[in-house]
Amino acid sequence: MPGINDMKTHPGFLFSTAEAAIKKPGRKDIALIVSEVESNIAGTFTKNAVKAAPVRLCMRNIKSGKGRVIIVNSGNANACTGKRGMQDAEKIAADVSRRLDIKPSLAYICSTGVIGTPLPMERITPALDALVGNVGRSSFADVAEAIMTTDTFPKIVSRSLKIGGKSGTITGVCKGAGMIAPNMATMLCFILTDVALEKRALGAALKESVSKSFNRITIDGDMSTNDTVLLMANGMLGNAPITLKSKYFSAFSKALDEVTYALSKLVVKDGEGATKLIEVIVKGAKSDSHALKAAFAIANSSLVKTAIYGNDANWGRIMCAVGYSGIPFHEEKADVFFNAVQVVKRGLANNKDKEATAALKSKEIAITIDLHAGKSSARVLTCDFTEEYIRINAEYRT
Amino acid sequence: MPGINDMKTHPGFLFSTAEAAIKKPGRKDIALIVSEVESNIAGTFTKNAVKAAPVRLCMRNIKSGKGRVIIVNSGNANACTGKRGMQDAEKIAADVSRRLDIKPSLAYICSTGVIGTPLPMERITPALDALVGNVGRSSFADVAEAIMTTDTFPKIVSRSLKIGGKSGTITGVCKGAGMIAPNMATMLCFILTDVALEKRALGAALKESVSKSFNRITIDGDMSTNDTVLLMANGMLGNAPITLKSKYFSAFSKALDEVTYALSKLVVKDGEGATKLIEVIVKGAKSDSHALKAAFAIANSSLVKTAIYGNDANWGRIMCAVGYSGIPFHEEKADVFFNAVQVVKRGLANNKDKEATAALKSKEIAITIDLHAGKSSARVLTCDFTEEYIRINAEYRT
Repeated sequence: MPGINDMKTHPGFLFSTAEAAIKKPGRKDIALIVSEVESNIAGTFTKNAVKAAPVRLCMRNIKSGKGRVIIVNSGNANACTGKRGMQDAEKIAADVSRRLDIKPSLAYICSTGVIGTPLPMERITPALDALVGNVGRSSFADVAEAIMTTDTFPKIVSRSLKIGGKSGTITGVCKGAGMIAPNMATMLCFILTDVALEKRALGAALKESVSKSFNRITIDGDMSTNDTVLLMANGMLGNAPITLKSKYFSAFSKALDEVTYALSKLVVKDGEGATKLIEVIVKGAKSDSHALKAAFAIANSSLVKTAIYGNDANWGRIMCAVGYSGIPFHEEKADVFFNAVQVVKRGLANNKDKEATAALKSKEIAITIDLHAGKSSARVLTCDFTEEYIRINAEYRT
Repeated sequence: MPGINDMKTHPGFLFSTAEAAIKKPGRKDIALIVSEVESNIAGTFTKNAVKAAPVRLCMRNIKSGKGRVIIVNSGNANACTGKRGMQDAEKIAADVSRRLDIKPSLAYICSTGVIGTPLPMERITPALDALVGNVGRSSFADVAEAIMTTDTFPKIVSRSLKIGGKSGTITGVCKGAGMIAPNMATMLCFILTDVALEKRALGAALKESVSKSFNRITIDGDMSTNDTVLLMANGMLGNAPITLKSKYFSAFSKALDEVTYALSKLVVKDGEGATKLIEVIVKGAKSDSHALKAAFAIANSSLVKTAIYGNDANWGRIMCAVGYSGIPFHEEKADVFFNAVQVVKRGLANNKDKEATAALKSKEIAITIDLHAGKSSARVLTCDFTEEYIRINAEYRT
């Protein structure tokens, strides 16, 4: 039984997946995560003014800081679906909760897929029997697979950490691919840990971790209506709950940061149509905010991203992007590098185009710009921009 | 002689083009516009912090409000070229001015093309002889052709207007294609008129006209280092110079607006790889600024633009874009239309996908969203996003 192995790595968490043929038949498209005990839970959500019904439901329930189950579907976002959308989300939460004999307020719903079409409740409702019946028969990796939309591979990352003499784990799954922009760039991410944390510590660790990972990536600059990250801590490790002042808080945060950063990197690697991972590094900025603005201007530039795709060391487009980023920019001070090759020296061509072109053939490209204006830096992940992105998104609903 | 016909439509202006093989041989890539008399001149320039040398030269000279010649090259932007770039621009201005026996401060230089490579002065300098020698042998349409880069057709628009009993003309040429974003979205645009205008009236008419045309278009969200619009009024019509209070000011402004709007539309139609012109109309906004933010969020969304390319009435992406535009948005009030087909009624699907898909097969698409939140509106032009854009920009320098 696939679930058994998972019980070792994710103590107290059980998984299930089932087929509801939401977009089309032939794959598992609903998933369930159940904690055997009431867990502390923290979340971060899209900043989009248009929030899908499940996002609004999660935001309402998470105020208690408590949770038992996460129910996810792919193939339909349940966004822009009005009152009916909220009724549908509540009905799914109620149906699953009743079968599991838990309070509906401990259930979290997440949806991903096309916007504006009501959920096919006539297919989802009957599939919930199988979903609940299968609990324990699927692995967390099966959940990672069920939540994929245009993703080309499932995304799962795990880290272990020592709390006193005990070994705990943090494992996360997520889906991404398109509509990925700063502020909660992953569409859906679920992180589970057996480590016990007090509510405030859990929330603080997650918020900080997301700000350094999912809020530092961009694929197409479009911010989704459904972005959700949930972190459940069921305390099965039996440690004294970690507080903000606990000596284990930083160890937990560090491990969590590794998980979210690795997941965010996987999301970018699997960006729609992407062939290369691009890390934009801005150094020597006057402030963190300047560094971040410049980094996002470069990472969001279609012209930079198509040049990298074409192995073209067209550094002018990088200078141009920083120029319109809104920060004060003295081009005559700037140095620019593609991986280790310096293409711009104090604002001027360094005549290393041949070397730079060779460097760009790599699958992982670091674009570094040193502004020589201060001591702040920032790092943003993105991917190249290809014909395949256009094809995927021109034909998304067909 | 081609110039002769032009003397009728552009009295007092002479044109020339020549080949300097700046990027490669085989086409006219330098152009010259000469006014027979000292003209009033107004200009608007890129807001990018990285300004090409010719832009900085123009911004310096334009303070006088006077001009005689405009010298343009395509194939090289002379941006990010440091002190040498400014020396090169000054040398070209000086060389042409000396040959024409005018003050160098009356010469305006514009460049467009690749960033970061010094101008090939060894080829440009000798070609200036032919350029000056040919004055009067080319038409304004030849100039429109010489300034093209990835443009697929030359852009020229003309309007006539009555000032008292006399008939004046306003004619503009421009180039666009890529690196086109709000704030001076056209890369280069030159507008000539025989109508006499006082300096302040000329500047005010141009600024207002650009704000309603070139500042309301976007192709890829990248703002260039070289964007320049110049408007020269040589007064050959012999009318009393129009002032801000003159009864002819609004007639001139109206004709100028028609020229700049038509040119900006041509730029978008010829957006890199574009197959469709998209007009985004936001109505019922609480303020002009809200309307404009929402319109640009839609017009800059890669997901909206790929959906239009794919004839997919995926209105969820429009709602999503308004949601992250930064304005307060009540989705339950919004109506959305593709041309005349209403796809969203008060925030919900109107089930007109079939009709909308048919409407999207048109070459000109209007996306209208009524926010029902106030009385302000805004209109932004953009184009669809295709594999061809990626190809053009991945291979731009090869």
